[in-house]
Amino acid sequence: MRGLILSFALALALAPLAAGEPPIPFPPTLISTAGELRSQALADGTALELVTSLVNEVGARPAGSEGDKKAVAWGLARFKGLGFDQVWSEEVTVPHWVRGTNSGEILAPNRHPLVLTALGGSVATPPGGLEAEVLRVESLADLETRPNDSVAGKIVFIDERMKATRDGSGYGAAVAKRGAGPGAAAKKGAAALLIRSAGTSKHRVAHTGATRYPDGVVKIPAASLANVDADVLAAQIATGQPVQVRLVLDTRVLPDEKSANVIAELRGREKPEEIVVLACHLDSWDLGHGAQDDGAGCATVMAAGRLLGRLPERPRRTVRVVLYANEEFGLSGARAYAQAHAAELPRHVAAAEADLGSGRVWRMHSGVTEDRLPAVRALAELLAPLGIELGPNDGSGGADFIPLKTARVPLFALFQDATAYFEIHHTENDTLAFVDPESLAQNVAAHTIWAFAVAEWEGDWGRAPEGASGR
Amino acid sequence: MRGLILSFALALALAPLAAGEPPIPFPPTLISTAGELRSQALADGTALELVTSLVNEVGARPAGSEGDKKAVAWGLARFKGLGFDQVWSEEVTVPHWVRGTNSGEILAPNRHPLVLTALGGSVATPPGGLEAEVLRVESLADLETRPNDSVAGKIVFIDERMKATRDGSGYGAAVAKRGAGPGAAAKKGAAALLIRSAGTSKHRVAHTGATRYPDGVVKIPAASLANVDADVLAAQIATGQPVQVRLVLDTRVLPDEKSANVIAELRGREKPEEIVVLACHLDSWDLGHGAQDDGAGCATVMAAGRLLGRLPERPRRTVRVVLYANEEFGLSGARAYAQAHAAELPRHVAAAEADLGSGRVWRMHSGVTEDRLPAVRALAELLAPLGIELGPNDGSGGADFIPLKTARVPLFALFQDATAYFEIHHTENDTLAFVDPESLAQNVAAHTIWAFAVAEWEGDWGRAPEGASGR
Repeated sequence: MRGLILSFALALALAPLAAGEPPIPFPPTLISTAGELRSQALADGTALELVTSLVNEVGARPAGSEGDKKAVAWGLARFKGLGFDQVWSEEVTVPHWVRGTNSGEILAPNRHPLVLTALGGSVATPPGGLEAEVLRVESLADLETRPNDSVAGKIVFIDERMKATRDGSGYGAAVAKRGAGPGAAAKKGAAALLIRSAGTSKHRVAHTGATRYPDGVVKIPAASLANVDADVLAAQIATGQPVQVRLVLDTRVLPDEKSANVIAELRGREKPEEIVVLACHLDSWDLGHGAQDDGAGCATVMAAGRLLGRLPERPRRTVRVVLYANEEFGLSGARAYAQAHAAELPRHVAAAEADLGSGRVWRMHSGVTEDRLPAVRALAELLAPLGIELGPNDGSGGADFIPLKTARVPLFALFQDATAYFEIHHTENDTLAFVDPESLAQNVAAHTIWAFAVAEWEGDWGRAPEGASGR
Repeated sequence: MRGLILSFALALALAPLAAGEPPIPFPPTLISTAGELRSQALADGTALELVTSLVNEVGARPAGSEGDKKAVAWGLARFKGLGFDQVWSEEVTVPHWVRGTNSGEILAPNRHPLVLTALGGSVATPPGGLEAEVLRVESLADLETRPNDSVAGKIVFIDERMKATRDGSGYGAAVAKRGAGPGAAAKKGAAALLIRSAGTSKHRVAHTGATRYPDGVVKIPAASLANVDADVLAAQIATGQPVQVRLVLDTRVLPDEKSANVIAELRGREKPEEIVVLACHLDSWDLGHGAQDDGAGCATVMAAGRLLGRLPERPRRTVRVVLYANEEFGLSGARAYAQAHAAELPRHVAAAEADLGSGRVWRMHSGVTEDRLPAVRALAELLAPLGIELGPNDGSGGADFIPLKTARVPLFALFQDATAYFEIHHTENDTLAFVDPESLAQNVAAHTIWAFAVAEWEGDWGRAPEGASGR
C-alpha cells in the first residue's frame, strides 16, 4: 500500500506541469533519497527510545528546576551518541517559579473539594489561603462589561470551555483568558481569578500554563480548574445561592537559574554557512512528565537528525537541531538564541519546530514568498505518502520562532493532529501513556524528509514575506 | 426499531414451547406492563437528575464523613419525593478512616514524584515518611516465594497489571493483592507495600480500595500507584540499580460514627410480607464524587422504584429499595440490615444490587434452584429488548448481599458493561463526566422490569440453592 502511494506521489512529482506552472524543482535523486528516509524513519524506534529515556531518567523539567539541569545534561549526552558533527550548549538564564501546594474548595452552599492548579507565574494567596464569594462570567469579554463594584473583592470565575479541534485552533481562543484574565480581573479589584482549564480533559486534572500581569496592577492569585470541577462550581452557582470558595496557592519565585539551549548540527557539504533549523523545547511544565510537551518533539527532531547523519553524504546545507530552554515560562531560550546568533540569522534558510504533541502530522504550513510556492508544493509531494496535506503559507511556527520573525526566517510547521493533545497538555497526564509509537515514527519521517529536502535542494528558499502573520 | 424488537420478544414469550420444557409462567398482562415500563424508563430523566443532585449537593461520602451524613439526609429527602409508601432510615455504626495527605517519590537513581494513594485502612507512615529500597515482585504468588531476608526492610512493589474486561472479572484477580498484599508483605518483614493500582486507567490517578491486615502482623503502610507511575518505577528498577523510594501517608482512624441504611418501599397489594429488594450503596470513596460508585446505582434503583409506584396498582409483592451504608469499608450497612431484618429474610423473595457503574446492562445472572429456571428465562425475555442476555445461574450479586447468603435469598444481578468502569473506579475520576445518560436510562429500564416481574409473578421463586457460590 505504501509502495502504491509512493509511486503515485513520484508520478505526480514527475508529471508534466499544468500550463503556467513553474517547473517542480526537486531532482529525482532528492526524491528517491526522501523515499528511503521515509521507510527508514517509519521503521526506526530511536524517537520512542529517546522520549522514554527522557521521561524515566529526567521527567518533569520546568525552568530553573533540578530536572531542567538534568535535561540539559541528558540532551548533550544523548546528542553525542547520535552521530552529529558538533554538539554544544549555550547558557540561558531562566526564571524559577515554583508551584508549591495548590488547593481549593467550595465552602458554601455545598462543601466540595476543587481540583485546581496555579497558573504559571501566579502570585501566592496569603498564608492559610483566601476566601471570597465567586462571580461567574462567561468569558474575558463578559468580564470587561461588568461594573467594578460587582467584581471588587470577588473571586472571578471565567467559565469558558475550550473546544477540541484537529488544528488546535481552540487553544488560541482558550488561552486568551489564561494570559489576560488575571490582569483584567485585578484591574476591577477582584481578589483572585479562577478559570475553567484551557484544555479539553474530562478527567480530573487542571491544565496549567503561563500567565502574566500587566504593569501597574495589584497581582492577584490565579488558578485553573479541572473541567469537571468547573462543572460542579457552575452547578452550585446556578442554584442562585451565593457560592463561597477558599483558594490556597503557595507559589514562590526563587532566584534565576542557569539553563541552556542544547544544540547539535550536521555541517552542510556545500553550503555549511546556510542553516536549516529543526527545533523543539527541552523544558516542560512541572505537573506531568513532559512526554508530549515537548519530549516527543525533541525525540522527533533528534531522531530526524540522526537519520540525516547516516546518509552517505551530508545534505548540502547545515542542519541544526536546537532544543530550546524554557519555552513554557517566557521563551528564554528562544530569545537567547536569536541574540547569540543574530549575525547568522540572515543565513537561517528555514526552520520548523515540533511542539504539538505526538499525534500524526497531517498538514504542512509554510512561510515563503509566493515565487517559492512551487518548491513548497514539491516538498508537500514528498510528504503526501505520510498522509500530510499542504496547508496555508501563513508562516505559522512554534513559539520559539517568534524571535526569528524580524530576521524573516522562512518558518515551516509540520502540524500534528491536536484533537486529543489538549486533553493531556499541561497536566499530570502528559506521560508516555499517550505517546503512540507509530504516530511518533510518522513524525520523525515527516521532519526528516522536510529537513533533508530543504537542506538539499539547490534552489533558494528566499526570505519570509514582510509582516508574515501566524504564530 | 424498538417496537419490532418488542414484538419479537413478545412472540418468543408467547410461542409454543419445545417438548419437555415447562410452561413459561408470565401472563400476557405482566409482559405488556413490562413493555410499558421499558418505554417509560428509557424516556425518563429521573436517574440522571438524582445522580447529578447527589454529586453536586453531596459529592464524596466515605463512611463516617460529613458527606456520609449529608448523603443519608439527601436519600431520605429524595425518597420522600418519589412516591413510595414508606421511607425510613436504620442507624448503622461505621468506622471512620481518613486518608490525609499521601505522597511519594523515587529518590534514586532518578528522582521522580509518584502519584499514589493510601489503601483504605492503611496505617500511617512515621511522621515525615518512610524511605527504603524497593523490591519488585510480579504478583502475590511471587511474593510468597521470596525468602524473608530478601523482603525484610524493603518496600515491596507488587507490579501486577489489571485487565479490562466486559464482565469485570479482571477486578477479582487484581483486588487479591490489594486485600492480602499488606499482610503477606508484613509477614516477611517488609517496611511498606506498594501495588500497581487495581484499576485500568492510563491517566495519572491511583485507584484506592479497602485492604485488611490479618491478626498478629505488624501493620505496614500500604498504597496504590497510578499505572503510569508504576511504569516509571518498574523502568527504573529494570536498570538494575537499587531504587529508593520515600512514602508519606498520614492516614488516621477517628472514632466510629453514626450513619444509616436509607430505605423506601412500595407495599405489595397481595403479599406485602414478601419482599423484593433493589439495592445500591450510598457511601463512596473519598477521592472522586461517587458518581458511578455507587451514585449511578442508587439513582437507578430509586428511579426504578419511582416508576413502579406510578403503576395503576402496586405489584403483588413488596418492593423495597435499600441504599446501604458503608459498603466500601467493611459492609457495615449490609451486616446491620441482615441483623435487623433477620426474622424477615426468609420472606426476602429475591434481591438485586446495582453496583458496577453506569455502563449498559448486558447480562442477567440468577441464583435459583433448577426448577425455577423457566421463570428466569421468561424474565430474560422481558430484558432481551434492552440488549440483555441471560447469564449463568451462579448467585452472583452485589457485595452488600453477602450477609443474605445464609438466609438463601435468591440473588440476581443485572451486570453493567465494565470495560471502561475500572478506569474510573475508586479514583478522582469517578465523576459525572463518565455517566452516559442513555446507558443510565437503560439501567433504570432493566432494574424496573426485573423488580416488577419478580414482585408481580404469582409463582414461587423458591430459595437459593444450598452453597450457591458467586459473590
